Amino acid sequence: LEPVIGDLRKLLGDAAVLEPSAQYEQDATEGRGLRGRADAVVLPDTAQDVARALAWCYEHDVPVVPRGGGSGFAGGAVPVDGGVVLGTERLRAVRALDPLLWRATFEAGLPTAHVHRLARENGLYYPPDPGASEQSQLGGNVATNAGGPHAFLHGVTGHWITGLEVAVAPGELIHLGGQTRKDVAGYDLRSLLIGSEGTLGIVTAADVRLIPAPEAALPVVASYPDVAAGCAAVAAVYGSGLRAAALEYLDAVTMAAAGSDAGFTVIAEAQGDAETAARLRDALAEALGEGASALDTPEPEALWRWRGGVSIAVSAKRGGKVSEDIAVPVDRLREAIEATLEIGARHGLEACSWGHAGDGNLHSTFMVARDEADRARAAADDLHELAVRLGGTVTGEHGLGLLRSGELARQWPPRALDLHEAVKRAFDPKALLNPGKKAARC
Amino acid sequence: LEPVIGDLRKLLGDAAVLEPSAQYEQDATEGRGLRGRADAVVLPDTAQDVARALAWCYEHDVPVVPRGGGSGFAGGAVPVDGGVVLGTERLRAVRALDPLLWRATFEAGLPTAHVHRLARENGLYYPPDPGASEQSQLGGNVATNAGGPHAFLHGVTGHWITGLEVAVAPGELIHLGGQTRKDVAGYDLRSLLIGSEGTLGIVTAADVRLIPAPEAALPVVASYPDVAAGCAAVAAVYGSGLRAAALEYLDAVTMAAAGSDAGFTVIAEAQGDAETAARLRDALAEALGEGASALDTPEPEALWRWRGGVSIAVSAKRGGKVSEDIAVPVDRLREAIEATLEIGARHGLEACSWGHAGDGNLHSTFMVARDEADRARAAADDLHELAVRLGGTVTGEHGLGLLRSGELARQWPPRALDLHEAVKRAFDPKALLNPGKKAARC
Repeated sequence: LEPVIGDLRKLLGDAAVLEPSAQYEQDATEGRGLRGRADAVVLPDTAQDVARALAWCYEHDVPVVPRGGGSGFAGGAVPVDGGVVLGTERLRAVRALDPLLWRATFEAGLPTAHVHRLARENGLYYPPDPGASEQSQLGGNVATNAGGPHAFLHGVTGHWITGLEVAVAPGELIHLGGQTRKDVAGYDLRSLLIGSEGTLGIVTAADVRLIPAPEAALPVVASYPDVAAGCAAVAAVYGSGLRAAALEYLDAVTMAAAGSDAGFTVIAEAQGDAETAARLRDALAEALGEGASALDTPEPEALWRWRGGVSIAVSAKRGGKVSEDIAVPVDRLREAIEATLEIGARHGLEACSWGHAGDGNLHSTFMVARDEADRARAAADDLHELAVRLGGTVTGEHGLGLLRSGELARQWPPRALDLHEAVKRAFDPKALLNPGKKAARC
Repeated sequence: LEPVIGDLRKLLGDAAVLEPSAQYEQDATEGRGLRGRADAVVLPDTAQDVARALAWCYEHDVPVVPRGGGSGFAGGAVPVDGGVVLGTERLRAVRALDPLLWRATFEAGLPTAHVHRLARENGLYYPPDPGASEQSQLGGNVATNAGGPHAFLHGVTGHWITGLEVAVAPGELIHLGGQTRKDVAGYDLRSLLIGSEGTLGIVTAADVRLIPAPEAALPVVASYPDVAAGCAAVAAVYGSGLRAAALEYLDAVTMAAAGSDAGFTVIAEAQGDAETAARLRDALAEALGEGASALDTPEPEALWRWRGGVSIAVSAKRGGKVSEDIAVPVDRLREAIEATLEIGARHGLEACSWGHAGDGNLHSTFMVARDEADRARAAADDLHELAVRLGGTVTGEHGLGLLRSGELARQWPPRALDLHEAVKRAFDPKALLNPGKKAARC
């Protein structure tokens, strides 16, 4: 396999091509035992070099596995069986940043947290806030159409992208859209690329829409005696006609793993100018309060930092976890939360869930020791069946990746699967882009 | 051609199949002389019958021209050369409406104004507000990804659609998405259908996301001595960090056609609870006021009704108009507005523009008598060249349709055009769905 490294070094320079190593052959699914095998790791310095690397691979029938920060939970960045891991981590340029026009153009390797910081430093706000934002990159967020708590008010990553620079087969950079905010000239290939998990092209840069930063973001936290009461509170927020910026929940088991005995907990956040946010926060507290056993209005930064650590606390409980991200219509939230616990019990696993209540998006989680992986997989399978039965999806945020590849057949009719496969063939006739990921059928 | 009508009547019943007539062979481009020719008009009562009609046509190699309310400005509903016009006007069922869950499922033929009214009657708000809302239908809005003034804050039609029921070739109903608010399982075929102008499938129903109705919507109107001062005001609103719900402009010629000597006019609207909206309205007035020669805070309903009549007033001036809808990055707004006037002058046509300033989306318009159509076409051609040179698009709202079919080649690179054509082939291998519309290349 030396020829791959040698040829690519001739093409892109020695420094851009590394020997394969564990770091680039796994992602955040490492804890579930996923580890791939690569022939080379390419870390281009420029978007043009991404296209050049793709062209070489396409000519030589070498698979290409695009990689952002490696924080994905679906194995989307794991090289299944050789080929080139193409990491975007060196593409970190801020090509444009126009605070007075509410827009920017960032290269794909810019970490999500940097995007947040750059926006904030310029009085603006980039709402998508998936977990692991220090590690994840904008390009990976685009590739998975990442969400996060504030997607409830503001929408997911795709809503904030007006243009994409993408390397497509057989090896060319194209720009889909740009800084114009509305464009209905062509088919929406931009949205097709967004969430395609590197199977249709490799995102090298994105034109991003931003908004003025809200003056205040004020959370309110309420605790409830059980799932039913907590879900009634979520429904009460909907029914109140108040627009929370985030509407999250954590079930009692999750709270316990995070060191709290508060029980089932709901978090709502109010955004706006200081007066509006305070008034909305109070109104949300009233809507949440009827069945609440405790109400609190914590410091927002401390709260979201704590919330970001919950996943790690749950992992720590038994050494590992299988964390899923089904989404269901919001009126099925309670069923999905209760069924998560039942499915865990059926498979002899401690289960819990937390997530984006307002979007009906659950991080249903089975806590496992290393030797319980098979049982966790069976539990995840039951969970996916449940999601589809409730009219939902096997994945609301993480993507199909490798772990759920082929599971689209659970929820799409055969003709839609045909179209999915036809789109893949149109973009990647040699099936070299992230093979084994996001397949419509097994 | 009798066999087409006869066979379709056997399949769908006599009442669902009409002889062709002028009403169904033209749309809002009739004033530009566009008129097609159909072999039959099919008005199915059910989504299943849409799929049945499509299946019959696909089997018999008969073109199918989907039709909503016929209010399109791009000739997208005009049957170029025979085949079946398939109108969705009888698909008007409200399949679901869940006010407390902020969602509904509407059939494609429901007029946009009915969607607005149903939302409002239930305390909710459906923000997309393209013109001609009494005539246009939800399905047509989806097919063109329609916008309108309030897209500035709330996004275009696609942002409000969580699921689509679509009849696809060779004649089958599929559901893409549903009532779940987040779903990253498959490629975003839903977004691909949205804005595809009936060339990939026929939308029969949509799952729609709604939001609580804002308590107040308060506009402020400001007039300026010239384009430069008006565009500086638009920039001032951006720079103020205030989020207007709409940010519109009408140039002095447009205002004159509408019977006003106010000159270049900017409209900003504040939405929110009563207190927030009032405070925001005052802040917007302050931001707009620096260069304004007059400020007014009219009744919102009267203002938007008046605004909706502007297009007709402009048409009346010389009997007809060629109204385009280019969009540019918002910092190029002034150039685009001034160039519209220059292009008109170069072709001996009176020109004007109005539109969605905040989105850089201009309704650049050339006023014409019937015998000036050639000159208007040449002027439109120059305008499209301008839009692309400014980094924009030939169409921000209306679509390519028939009038701009093939013009995508102005603004997309060849490889992207290839992908556009490959997507079309994947969905419509016989090229029977709305032939001649939205072609990537001429």
